[in-house]
Amino acid sequence: MDQATETRTPVDLLIHNAKVLTLNDSDDIFDPGVVAIRNDEIVWVGSEDSWRDQFEPVERINMAGGLIMPGLINAHTHAAMTCFRGLADDLPLSVWLNEHIFPAERKINGELVYKGTLLACAEMILSGTTTFCDMYLFEDQVAKAAHEASMRALVGEVLYDFPSPNYGPAENGLSFTKELINTWEMDPLVSVAVEPHAVYTCSPDLLRACRDIALEYRVPMIIHLAESQDEVEQVKSLYGVSPVMHLEKLGLLGPHLVADHCVVLKEEEMDLLAERGVKVVHNPESNMKLASGVAPAVELLSRGVAMGLGTDGCASNNNLDMLAEMDTAAKLHKVYRLDPTVMEAKTVTHLAVRGGAIVLGLEDKVGCLEPGKKADIIGLDLNKPHLTPLYNIYSHVVYAASAADVTLSIINGRVVMRNRELLTMDVERVMADVRAIAKKIKS
Amino acid sequence: MDQATETRTPVDLLIHNAKVLTLNDSDDIFDPGVVAIRNDEIVWVGSEDSWRDQFEPVERINMAGGLIMPGLINAHTHAAMTCFRGLADDLPLSVWLNEHIFPAERKINGELVYKGTLLACAEMILSGTTTFCDMYLFEDQVAKAAHEASMRALVGEVLYDFPSPNYGPAENGLSFTKELINTWEMDPLVSVAVEPHAVYTCSPDLLRACRDIALEYRVPMIIHLAESQDEVEQVKSLYGVSPVMHLEKLGLLGPHLVADHCVVLKEEEMDLLAERGVKVVHNPESNMKLASGVAPAVELLSRGVAMGLGTDGCASNNNLDMLAEMDTAAKLHKVYRLDPTVMEAKTVTHLAVRGGAIVLGLEDKVGCLEPGKKADIIGLDLNKPHLTPLYNIYSHVVYAASAADVTLSIINGRVVMRNRELLTMDVERVMADVRAIAKKIKS
Repeated sequence: MDQATETRTPVDLLIHNAKVLTLNDSDDIFDPGVVAIRNDEIVWVGSEDSWRDQFEPVERINMAGGLIMPGLINAHTHAAMTCFRGLADDLPLSVWLNEHIFPAERKINGELVYKGTLLACAEMILSGTTTFCDMYLFEDQVAKAAHEASMRALVGEVLYDFPSPNYGPAENGLSFTKELINTWEMDPLVSVAVEPHAVYTCSPDLLRACRDIALEYRVPMIIHLAESQDEVEQVKSLYGVSPVMHLEKLGLLGPHLVADHCVVLKEEEMDLLAERGVKVVHNPESNMKLASGVAPAVELLSRGVAMGLGTDGCASNNNLDMLAEMDTAAKLHKVYRLDPTVMEAKTVTHLAVRGGAIVLGLEDKVGCLEPGKKADIIGLDLNKPHLTPLYNIYSHVVYAASAADVTLSIINGRVVMRNRELLTMDVERVMADVRAIAKKIKS
Repeated sequence: MDQATETRTPVDLLIHNAKVLTLNDSDDIFDPGVVAIRNDEIVWVGSEDSWRDQFEPVERINMAGGLIMPGLINAHTHAAMTCFRGLADDLPLSVWLNEHIFPAERKINGELVYKGTLLACAEMILSGTTTFCDMYLFEDQVAKAAHEASMRALVGEVLYDFPSPNYGPAENGLSFTKELINTWEMDPLVSVAVEPHAVYTCSPDLLRACRDIALEYRVPMIIHLAESQDEVEQVKSLYGVSPVMHLEKLGLLGPHLVADHCVVLKEEEMDLLAERGVKVVHNPESNMKLASGVAPAVELLSRGVAMGLGTDGCASNNNLDMLAEMDTAAKLHKVYRLDPTVMEAKTVTHLAVRGGAIVLGLEDKVGCLEPGKKADIIGLDLNKPHLTPLYNIYSHVVYAASAADVTLSIINGRVVMRNRELLTMDVERVMADVRAIAKKIKS
């Protein structure tokens, strides 16, 4: 061991010969750049020029000029709905729900949710997502699957006024949620939110109780909000006001609240969401496929609303591909407003990473590459025809890259995928399990 | 040799153990199915059950349960614009064109077009496209590149009222086109169209001369038409009528005409296009990214207009990925019309294959899998998390599959890609060539 080696600080992993897109406060790009990881944390990020061999790594990954960036954050999904991918499409919403999705969901149990979520984790890791936020039934199984897959997840049992196939009578939902919070409190990857389904399926009492738990346990409260014109009409006929104004009247709008979709909003409701510090998750592909509408994402961003991006569930997308979602988000708002300058590539990249981290309350841990952040990192192979030539890295990420370009995924310092091979699960078994479930669903 | 073998007819290639999506007149799906190829032609398609070992193949491809379908047809692109992929995005149209694309295009020459097209062929083959229709400069080089890559192509030199970096004075354009037609007349893969750029860049005389050549040589006449509101205004100020009505007045609307984009159309113009038998190519992603608008594709289809799907060039997409284009097409019209039942998966699959074949006048050769058609066939690996489970094959093709799932491409009976490896070119060299071009463009 020579003297230089002796004075170097040991690190676990060194990623080098990469274009490093940090998404930090100054949007630094290092090309070629280096990222050093110790345990679960990033300890150094910078250019190879300024790198002075100050660390001695156990392992090195040479990206061969590929891209390194923070892992994508899927801020709204229903992971286990992979089991219903392509079960029914192109139908009127009521037919789709009442004749296909609801009957299929009557067959769900903890095993389906566990296996469906594992499949979702496989798909998400393989497409560059390192964190997801989930709402479904049997969320203890979602937490278990995410933990096994070694994915970062914010999970929450869906709560509503009816009995649940999981926790039984509606009144058990809150205690189930509290138990879930306590169970996963110390987990490095999984955390828990309070997740009432929607304004039209949850009584004011239930919504207020959810808010109380969110504030008491300092966890987010997550709800579907103003997803479609039908929802707005339904809530108006129930409560005389729109979904947003209903929550305002109940005193439930605040920085603890994450509102998924927010498609049908009036100008004054956008102002109100901004004023109250409510966070929003935008799901353009699901909103398109279900013909819900185009969310005023540009308008919300211009008001300073914190926003993330999500795929929604596989029954309404039909994949969990965040790179595809980013491409769609960037293009949809341009044509909707007839303005090619909105939702530019850099904004969309931020939405899919830092935006998601902020919305989910994880911004202290993830969302950019800088020392002190958890090592949630993906690598993309740029040596592909469809990524040639390269003028602008943000443009490539949003408009040209696709899921299969992701060749490296590190979550909380652990390499979970390399060269398209999943290292935390037996993907053949996971796929076989869901195929067996699908056979039962179809029968 | 036993007797059974003696009585079998020899074929070159047998694809088996596949889900075969034929897109034939009765939309047959064979699962498991078999496709037999002799020389450049499909000689048999059917289920493995009805297969009686009647052919003796030289080579067999076992698809292991994967999908076999006709190759995708990219019915409108500017292949060589791969050289400008991501050069400039998210800008007002005039800034994008005048400050970025036009200055870059001043640097183009035959070498750029040849190398850029080879890269485009690589990308297209790797994403399931087997035929493309091109409009650009130096189309002799496009033809050469397509021929070398072994792709089916309909190419045409862009014609307008100004001098061209290729053929010089405007009046040379027609003779260049005629020469191109004659040169490639007997080629099994490449054919030629007459391609005036647009109504606002071509004089009535030039347009009429183009029509005359198209009719004389029995080739399509292809033009950008009604792409944006700006174009419509410009043509109105020039000729007092809309682009469609201008062509009608000139007597140029007819079954020989392929109109790209057709975004801004009045109801009566749609009726007219249908009545005259004009064919249309829909380019949703480009129209979104450039904020041109949403083409009335549903309305045109309901009037019986023949329609194909295209990616447009890489500067306005930014890829040549037809599977992504199909997903977008299916979703865009749902949200635009607030109707989840339009542009269903099967319709979109037909658009991207048979629709393209009909529009380009290639329906006798390609567009479905049936005996007598040329063997333009792609295979997709379905053993992927994002394609699991499988309920409906059209749904997977449109909403879940992605470019990298394509593992086999056969064009005119020749295997041009297998297991993601291109067999007709040195893809590393092709990428290096375009990177060198990009450096010059940027400098």
